Amino acid sequence: MKATAEVQVIPIGVGVSVRDQVRRAHAVLLEAGLNAQLHANGTNLEGELEDVFAAIRRVHETLHAEGAPRLATFIKIGTRTDKEPSLAGKLF
Amino acid sequence: MKATAEVQVIPIGVGVSVRDQVRRAHAVLLEAGLNAQLHANGTNLEGELEDVFAAIRRVHETLHAEGAPRLATFIKIGTRTDKEPSLAGKLF
Amino acid sequence: MKATAEVQVIPIGVGVSVRDQVRRAHAVLLEAGLNAQLHANGTNLEGELEDVFAAIRRVHETLHAEGAPRLATFIKIGTRTDKEPSLAGKLF
Amino acid sequence: MKATAEVQVIPIGVGVSVRDQVRRAHAVLLEAGLNAQLHANGTNLEGELEDVFAAIRRVHETLHAEGAPRLATFIKIGTRTDKEPSLAGKLF
Repeated sequence: MKATAEVQVIPIGVGVSVRDQVRRAHAVLLEAGLNAQLHANGTNLEGELEDVFAAIRRVHETLHAEGAPRLATFIKIGTRTDKEPSLAGKLF
Repeated sequence: MKATAEVQVIPIGVGVSVRDQVRRAHAVLLEAGLNAQLHANGTNLEGELEDVFAAIRRVHETLHAEGAPRLATFIKIGTRTDKEPSLAGKLF
Repeated sequence: MKATAEVQVIPIGVGVSVRDQVRRAHAVLLEAGLNAQLHANGTNLEGELEDVFAAIRRVHETLHAEGAPRLATFIKIGTRTDKEPSLAGKLF
Repeated sequence: MKATAEVQVIPIGVGVSVRDQVRRAHAVLLEAGLNAQLHANGTNLEGELEDVFAAIRRVHETLHAEGAPRLATFIKIGTRTDKEPSLAGKLF
């Protein structure tokens, strides 16, 4: 099932700057081969729902392995059967 | 990796009442064997992250199969390595 | 305009435990006189939209004044004109 | 208090296409004089927290007045005291 998504990962317990972890999270999402568009409040994604979820799981595994003790992630998922879901189709 | 989560599914294009779809979504989450606690703005979950994501995918598959043309889902995921994550541990 | 809401405040830069700040945030929401129901992923609220937003602003002011350097807050707002919105009405 | 924000309004009960309402919501946010950047999963905002909340309230008032019976809105708010919050500062 194809989906559009938004992912924002907030590392907790790494200090007030979370730039390094946000950069790593975005890199892991890009490596997943998804259409990934960074913006100020997350990364927009387009791809198979299964791949989106797998990529988010890898973000959690990666950031924890690299030292972040706690992660709070906020995800938006959009699916539809009347037409092919796409990020471009959500802009007007 | 164990996680806490919140899932809220919003069906679009089924009319102003979404009660039937919300009830179905909650039932699918319960069938997944996750600790699932319904509240007014979603269902809180506790379980393996892989199982949480699989259950949410089944919610989308089920609601689309039963006629909802479009779904917008909002998910919160919490993981941590310093202690076992649990819903009970997030209350004070 | 009456609204239902969910508010979750995540303090960044206070360490891996955020319990003190979450407790304070909930207390400030209660002091606002709103119907406030704590759950594992936030506080559900019911009241005038203006009062909900004012209460959330006070949460930010209070937590910053008490030392939290950075706050990320996630809010859900529900309004409707076909019937009176209520937290109870969102359960089935 | 200066804030960064993201706002996504989902109209319920207007049919499967929500393009007209999303366009109106974005227009109302622009009229508020906030730095407003549209993306596929919402509009990013930068401005005084009070102005952000006032603009979102106007979105609800406008869309209801123009016929949407039900709205579900998802908001992210970021504030910080260690430096001036800005949308540009959240990109790397």
